[in-house]
Amino acid sequence: MKSYTIGLDFGTNSVRSIIADCSNGDEIATSVFNYPTGEHGVILDKDNHHLARQNPADYIEGLESSVIDALKDAHAFAGFSNERVIGIGVDTTGSTPMPVGKNNSPLAISSVWKNNPAAHAWLWKDHTAAEEAQQITRLARKHRPQYLAKCGGIYSSEWFWSKIWHCLNSAPDVFDAAYSWLEIADYIPALLAGIRDPHLVIRGICPAGHKAMYCDEWEGLPDKEFLAMLNPKLADLRDRLYLKAHSADFKAGELSAEWANKLGLIEGIPIGVGALDAHYGAIGAGVKEGTLVKIIGTSTCDCTVAPTTKKVEDVPGICGIVNGSILPGFYGLEAGQSAVGDIFKWFVEIICQGNDGHHQILTEEASGLHPGQSGLLALDWNNGNRTILVDPKLSGLLIGQTLYTTSAEIYRALIEATAFGARAIIDRFQEFKIPVEKIVCCGGIAEKNPLLMQIYADVTGCTMQVSASEQTCALGSAIVASVLAGELKGGHPSIFVAQQKMTQIKSREYFPNLENKVIYDKLYRLYCTLHDGFGGVQPMVDLSNVMKDLMSLKKG
Amino acid sequence: MKSYTIGLDFGTNSVRSIIADCSNGDEIATSVFNYPTGEHGVILDKDNHHLARQNPADYIEGLESSVIDALKDAHAFAGFSNERVIGIGVDTTGSTPMPVGKNNSPLAISSVWKNNPAAHAWLWKDHTAAEEAQQITRLARKHRPQYLAKCGGIYSSEWFWSKIWHCLNSAPDVFDAAYSWLEIADYIPALLAGIRDPHLVIRGICPAGHKAMYCDEWEGLPDKEFLAMLNPKLADLRDRLYLKAHSADFKAGELSAEWANKLGLIEGIPIGVGALDAHYGAIGAGVKEGTLVKIIGTSTCDCTVAPTTKKVEDVPGICGIVNGSILPGFYGLEAGQSAVGDIFKWFVEIICQGNDGHHQILTEEASGLHPGQSGLLALDWNNGNRTILVDPKLSGLLIGQTLYTTSAEIYRALIEATAFGARAIIDRFQEFKIPVEKIVCCGGIAEKNPLLMQIYADVTGCTMQVSASEQTCALGSAIVASVLAGELKGGHPSIFVAQQKMTQIKSREYFPNLENKVIYDKLYRLYCTLHDGFGGVQPMVDLSNVMKDLMSLKKG
Repeated sequence: MKSYTIGLDFGTNSVRSIIADCSNGDEIATSVFNYPTGEHGVILDKDNHHLARQNPADYIEGLESSVIDALKDAHAFAGFSNERVIGIGVDTTGSTPMPVGKNNSPLAISSVWKNNPAAHAWLWKDHTAAEEAQQITRLARKHRPQYLAKCGGIYSSEWFWSKIWHCLNSAPDVFDAAYSWLEIADYIPALLAGIRDPHLVIRGICPAGHKAMYCDEWEGLPDKEFLAMLNPKLADLRDRLYLKAHSADFKAGELSAEWANKLGLIEGIPIGVGALDAHYGAIGAGVKEGTLVKIIGTSTCDCTVAPTTKKVEDVPGICGIVNGSILPGFYGLEAGQSAVGDIFKWFVEIICQGNDGHHQILTEEASGLHPGQSGLLALDWNNGNRTILVDPKLSGLLIGQTLYTTSAEIYRALIEATAFGARAIIDRFQEFKIPVEKIVCCGGIAEKNPLLMQIYADVTGCTMQVSASEQTCALGSAIVASVLAGELKGGHPSIFVAQQKMTQIKSREYFPNLENKVIYDKLYRLYCTLHDGFGGVQPMVDLSNVMKDLMSLKKG
Repeated sequence: MKSYTIGLDFGTNSVRSIIADCSNGDEIATSVFNYPTGEHGVILDKDNHHLARQNPADYIEGLESSVIDALKDAHAFAGFSNERVIGIGVDTTGSTPMPVGKNNSPLAISSVWKNNPAAHAWLWKDHTAAEEAQQITRLARKHRPQYLAKCGGIYSSEWFWSKIWHCLNSAPDVFDAAYSWLEIADYIPALLAGIRDPHLVIRGICPAGHKAMYCDEWEGLPDKEFLAMLNPKLADLRDRLYLKAHSADFKAGELSAEWANKLGLIEGIPIGVGALDAHYGAIGAGVKEGTLVKIIGTSTCDCTVAPTTKKVEDVPGICGIVNGSILPGFYGLEAGQSAVGDIFKWFVEIICQGNDGHHQILTEEASGLHPGQSGLLALDWNNGNRTILVDPKLSGLLIGQTLYTTSAEIYRALIEATAFGARAIIDRFQEFKIPVEKIVCCGGIAEKNPLLMQIYADVTGCTMQVSASEQTCALGSAIVASVLAGELKGGHPSIFVAQQKMTQIKSREYFPNLENKVIYDKLYRLYCTLHDGFGGVQPMVDLSNVMKDLMSLKKG
């Protein structure tokens, strides 16, 4: 008899439920619920384009609706029945914190606060707290450098404390009305488990460690003395948050009678600790030591792990290094490129005024070019640089254009630029003894663009694989749930075993072409000159041969 | 009774004849003859895209046809008759040398050689002689540095000796068959004057000084010892070229009976010494000390003059400094930007896939932007840098792009880049005490693009004027002819007087906006950082603030 787990993936515009076969990872049913509030699920403010909030009511409605729909579809499979669902796993965007009352209910669903955007969930891409983030970075650099060392040296406006502090500064009534704050990654499992007290919510190490400066080394969240430097009210809030955060081998709770009833599932099945989407995505893509998982979309999130049995130094520029944030017993390491798909989209749609078909045309034309042939080189910083420079104030660059340079040549140079950016991350990992031998990619671009995959293989010198699942985040959540359910119930004894059973790689792999790599090594050296010069890594740079070297490569 | 002169302008695709009223410069008739040979008058080679030749038969046919047509049209004017034409002036492209026989007849019009491209005129933009040019530069740098000092430090593949030497290397039969070589600027006047011996042709100082390393300081053309280092046959050729070259106050001859008869003009009227189009164009635009004339087209040619009564140092990077090449009694100084209109055309047509109307749309949108607002900065080197770096192996650069950068912003940044390139030339002139107080522009872009003109005024801090004539080159030739005819015949006593009478400026002038200039001064400093770094002027450059400074300017 087969067993199944549900993976729930709360994204930016929708929530997706999948039902995965524990024996092989097959996703036998999927259902997507689009959030009804705001623009594609995001509450915007036309006067402040940094603002991005979400309505928690959408999460609750979407949770119920998408699970029920997926279960309905799953009945088409012989042998499936709701009783065979042995656990639920949850991943969400993050840092997406929201204020809750003493009963753990989101403020935003109360009639008092429902029209106040500050009382809603502060979506990961909300950038209203830029000032607060800078202030936190400044203070931590001076008083608690260890807090920054684990998150790449700069605390972001996208993260937990920046947002809560900004709420305190800009909407003090909401701050005062909130009893506590929860990442939605922690809220959803608690909701399913029927936990009605913020103190009892099992918090995940992933959002805590990567976004809230939580670390067991300094006994959890930032200390009260430090938080009081921001604002004494934040020091007070610390007591109403949490002392301990947990990794994926921990249950967030068991399915409550109420939700078992709503969904038609068995009461008491385990609910996994929630995590950030990319991290469970890494699990769903088969992350292990030596494997880097790249989720390539508008931007990338790059995750790998290193065993806690070895000493891992803080890696400068890597957004986060957190014990247990991906796999229990391993440090989870997260890096990222601020723009990848977004750069191609910008070039095609805004500059070339093209549409989706135009991507295809440019890709085909670009595929006919050899490395170096265009004489072009670009920096992939149109949206700043997340890793390894951690500098949002950088911008794009294109060099080497002549009067004959074509759009396809520029398109290829932009793909190559993102590949060089990917290599800079890998080089940084390896410099700090975190091995990267294989890269598994997820996301639409990885599946649809063989040219990009081949260029990445040639530039990085790593074999590039593509995850077989198109929903690695939800699959990762389902994997985590299968382990919590345990072998006896038809689940798995460990994440490692579950990954072996439930994750797959597409048959088409991309191996580095060594001839191309020789040329890309030369281009990468030029990229590094520009990277280090404009990125401020090297104070003085010799540029005099950059254009000439590009021209020589062009001639072959 | 009115007097008229004919100005003949031999361009890349056609020859133009104008008939100018000596009293006020009015162009009472114009006729254009498109060269029938090759692609728009240019003989190309599909296997060698560096090759560009012209058929001398086209010049002869076009000369006769366009003058006759212009005269025909001129009869519509009361008081005009062919007898009132008192002189002819000639300007041409250059360096465009061609081999001639002992009778001064182009080899290419003989039946033996007419199908051999090497026997035709080697058009200015023929780049087949790149190797020879490098070799000449190398040898001159070692043995005759003074030859290079007057032409910016590098001898070009576009010039006289490179081409002739390449002919000797690649088509020795043609070289051996040629008795002498003539710039077409020297050939056309000689043709009109009926001169049938290369030794008797009056050569112009303009092509001689700017393209053939001729200088009175070293007794004319490069010495035989030097030429023998290239090839002994070139040293022998020197004896069949010329000892002395002449400025615009010199007659090339008088109209022969044969051509007077063909054209219906009076025999014996003076024919001006031929010159390069831009140089007579400078005269037609009113060049004088302190005035820079910019002919803005696909590229620019920038000309000014400095009195020979003052000492003028060699100005590094300026393509040529030649006594008498523009105005007698003045050093003629020539600079240029390798691409201006061509860059806009590339961006609109190749990258944006737009047409002429698209230029208009982008210009309108770009007009709504403030300096610095886009955060972009570009280098105008898509076709290398002619002045002041004299380096064809440089390429374009764009920096500061985000995910929101628009085509119109890039379009404006490209215009600004050419303005910064223009300012670099002006700064170099001024550094060497050549004053530039006013800029007079000619060419379609100057007339059609007020945005560009205003940006140039704001960037350079100079008042920008536009020449009233659309044919300043032909007008300059007509002015020169009017002086040679003399006051008694209805011409003028000097070029200075003729310019006052015959040249005009359009009423719309562009004055620098000082608020914009403050911002452009900051952008120009960043431009100089990139210019000096990538151009190799500074060995080491600090780039760390470039992107951030651009971002600050963006925020105002």
